[in-house]
Amino acid sequence: MGKKIERLQQMIAKALEKHDADSLVVMSPENVFYTSEIFILSHRWIPQRLVLVVFHQQAPPTHIICNIQEGFVRSEEGWIKDIRVYVEFVTSPIQMLADVLKEKGLANHKVLIEKTHLNTAYYEELCRTLPNCAFEDCTPIMDRIKQQKTDEEVLLLQENARIIERALLETYQVTKPGDSERDVAATAISNLAALGYDTVDILTLCSGKTIFTNTKPGDHRLQEGDMLRIDMIGTRRGYRGDLFRQAVLGEPNPAQFNAYQRYFDALNSILEKTVVGARPCDLYETCKREFKSVQLEMDLPHIGHGIGAGLHEHPSISPLDKKPIIANMVFNIEPIGVDPMVGGFGQELTVHVTEDGPKVLSDYMDISNLYIIGS
Amino acid sequence: MGKKIERLQQMIAKALEKHDADSLVVMSPENVFYTSEIFILSHRWIPQRLVLVVFHQQAPPTHIICNIQEGFVRSEEGWIKDIRVYVEFVTSPIQMLADVLKEKGLANHKVLIEKTHLNTAYYEELCRTLPNCAFEDCTPIMDRIKQQKTDEEVLLLQENARIIERALLETYQVTKPGDSERDVAATAISNLAALGYDTVDILTLCSGKTIFTNTKPGDHRLQEGDMLRIDMIGTRRGYRGDLFRQAVLGEPNPAQFNAYQRYFDALNSILEKTVVGARPCDLYETCKREFKSVQLEMDLPHIGHGIGAGLHEHPSISPLDKKPIIANMVFNIEPIGVDPMVGGFGQELTVHVTEDGPKVLSDYMDISNLYIIGS
Repeated sequence: MGKKIERLQQMIAKALEKHDADSLVVMSPENVFYTSEIFILSHRWIPQRLVLVVFHQQAPPTHIICNIQEGFVRSEEGWIKDIRVYVEFVTSPIQMLADVLKEKGLANHKVLIEKTHLNTAYYEELCRTLPNCAFEDCTPIMDRIKQQKTDEEVLLLQENARIIERALLETYQVTKPGDSERDVAATAISNLAALGYDTVDILTLCSGKTIFTNTKPGDHRLQEGDMLRIDMIGTRRGYRGDLFRQAVLGEPNPAQFNAYQRYFDALNSILEKTVVGARPCDLYETCKREFKSVQLEMDLPHIGHGIGAGLHEHPSISPLDKKPIIANMVFNIEPIGVDPMVGGFGQELTVHVTEDGPKVLSDYMDISNLYIIGS
Repeated sequence: MGKKIERLQQMIAKALEKHDADSLVVMSPENVFYTSEIFILSHRWIPQRLVLVVFHQQAPPTHIICNIQEGFVRSEEGWIKDIRVYVEFVTSPIQMLADVLKEKGLANHKVLIEKTHLNTAYYEELCRTLPNCAFEDCTPIMDRIKQQKTDEEVLLLQENARIIERALLETYQVTKPGDSERDVAATAISNLAALGYDTVDILTLCSGKTIFTNTKPGDHRLQEGDMLRIDMIGTRRGYRGDLFRQAVLGEPNPAQFNAYQRYFDALNSILEKTVVGARPCDLYETCKREFKSVQLEMDLPHIGHGIGAGLHEHPSISPLDKKPIIANMVFNIEPIGVDPMVGGFGQELTVHVTEDGPKVLSDYMDISNLYIIGS
C-alpha cells in the first residue's frame, strides 16, 4: 500500500505544520496498524503493553514496541525503520516515548497525541515526564486521514464483506428448526474462520421477532416462523468486516413478507441518497422519514459507520455528523426497522461512495427477498 | 455467582472506607463484566461507547449503558437494578456519570476510578464537569479483588482451558506436511468456535524452530521435522482461555527429543515451587535458573499472568511482582526456553494454587512428551 503511506505522510506533515506541533503520536490498535501496516495481534488485548508510532516534523517516524513483539515486528520488514524496543516491567513505554520526543527536539513543545485512546494513568505519567510539553488530541486528524480509502483498501473491504456474507449464507443453509441459538452461532464463527478471517471479534444473534440489537446467542431453540438475524464482526488482514443478514425459518407469513418489502424499499431509498455531498445527519433523517412512511419504527442513535482498520470509523451516520460525504468513503448502512406486530428487520450494507454514486460492496447474498431458511 | 458478588460488595465497601471515598467507578470491559456479570460483546470494540458500573458508599450500584444495549441488558436481569441509559451522540456518558455522582452525594469529593482505562479525553471532560472532585485510580483495588477466584470461577477457567487444549489437539491430529500455517490456523479457530467459545480473540502460530512469540500465521508450508506452536486466546461465558501447545511434525530428532525433555523438567521444577507464600518474582528467577541449568535460554519479561475475566490479571509472574501468592489465585505459567541450535520450546499451563499445592487445570492433553503430528 505505497500510495496509502505516501498520502498519510503528506497529510500528517500538513497537520503538524497547521497545528504548529513537533510530533504526532498514535497508540490505538487501529491507528498503529493503519500507520505502521504491522498488525500486532495482542495489542488490543494487553492494553498496558503500549505500541506507539511517532511522526516527527523533521525525521522519519519511530515505532515503539515491547521486546515480546520484536522478533515478529522485525520479520515483517515494515516501512518504518526506526524501531525502539522497551523491556516490559523494566522500562516504561511512556519514558521511552519521552526519550524519543526529546531526542528529536521539541522546538514548539506541542505534541499531538491520541487523547481518545491514551489512558489517564499513562497521560499523567507523560505530563510528569515532560512537564513543559502541551498535548493536544490528534484523533480528528487521524479520523480525517482514514475516512478516504485507497483502491487497495476498497478491494480488501469488499473481500471482507463478501466473506462474512458467505459465512452467514452457508450458516443459514444448514440451520433448521430445533437448533439452539448457540449451535447456529458456533457454525457461523467456524465458517468465518474457515473462510480466512484472522479473528472473529463479535457475533450477536437475535431470533424470534428480532427486535433487539446487540444480543448474545442463548439457549432458545429456533422454531418454524421465527426470524433470525446474525451480526458478525471480524478482522482479516488488519481490516474489519461487519455485516448482519436477516432470515426467516420457513416461508414467511404474509405480514412478515409485507413488512420486509417495506423495509427493503426504505433501505433502497436511503441508499439512493448516499452520494458525494450529502450529509450523514441528513441520511439519518432520511432513514427516519422513510421508515415512518412505510410504518416502521426506528430508534437507533446511528444507522451506520465508516469501516476500515477500525470498526467504527468516520463518518458516523448519526445526527451529530454534519460534514458532507466525500468520494472514496466506505461505510456501513445498518438501519433496523421495527413493525411492532411483526418484528424487527435489518440488513447491513458496506457501501463505497464513488463520484458516480454509491456502490454496494457487500453483494454476495441477494437480499431483495427475505432469506428463507429451509427453502 | 452469588458468593462472588457478595465478596465484591464487601471488599469495595472496605476500600471506599479505607480511601475515604464516596464512589468507585469501573469502565473496562473486564471490570464491567466482572462486577455486573453482564457481558456486552461490543464493549471492547467501540471504546467511545462507555459502559460503567458505579459503586456508592450509601446506595446500591448503578449501571450506565448506551440505549443500543438496553434491550439486551434488561433481558439479562442482572443483579444491578439501577440502570441508567444514555442516548449515544445525544447525551455524553461522562455527563451521565457526573449526574449520578451528584445525585448520590459527593460528601468526601473523592472518586476512585479506573485511570488505567479511562481515556484522557473523557478524563478531561470529567474534570471539567466535576471540578471539585478528586479522582484516584481504583485499578489496584480491582486487581486485588479479582485475583482470588471462587469455586465457580475455577471450574469455568478449567473448562475454558481444557476446551482450548482439545481444539489444539484436534487441530494437530489433522495437520500434515504441506499444510500452510494459515490452513492450520483456520482449523484451530474453527475447532475452538465449534467447541463453544463465544469469540476467538487471538491466534498466534510459530513453525520451524518456533523461537519467536506473538507471530502471525503466514504462507509457510509445514515440513517434516518442523516444530509447531499455536497460542489460542478466546472468551467463553465472559471468561478467558489462553494456552499454547508445542508439537513436532513426524518423529522428533534426538536433539529435539532431548531439548524437550530438558524443557519439561525445568517446567516441572517451576510448577513445584508454585505454592502459597512464594513470590511471583522468585518464580521468575526460578525459571531463569532452571532453564540455565538445562542449557536453555530465556529472555521473556514475564513467564505468566493471572487469568479470569481479563487476559492478563494479577499476579504477573515477572520481576516486578513481589507480593506473595495466595490461595485460590489462578494463573498461567508460560515460559519459553530456547536451545539456539534446536529451537524454542513452550507449553502454557493454567494453574490453580490451593492450600495443598498447585493444581494444573489445563490437563486435557498429555504434555509429558512432545506431541508428534502424524503419529
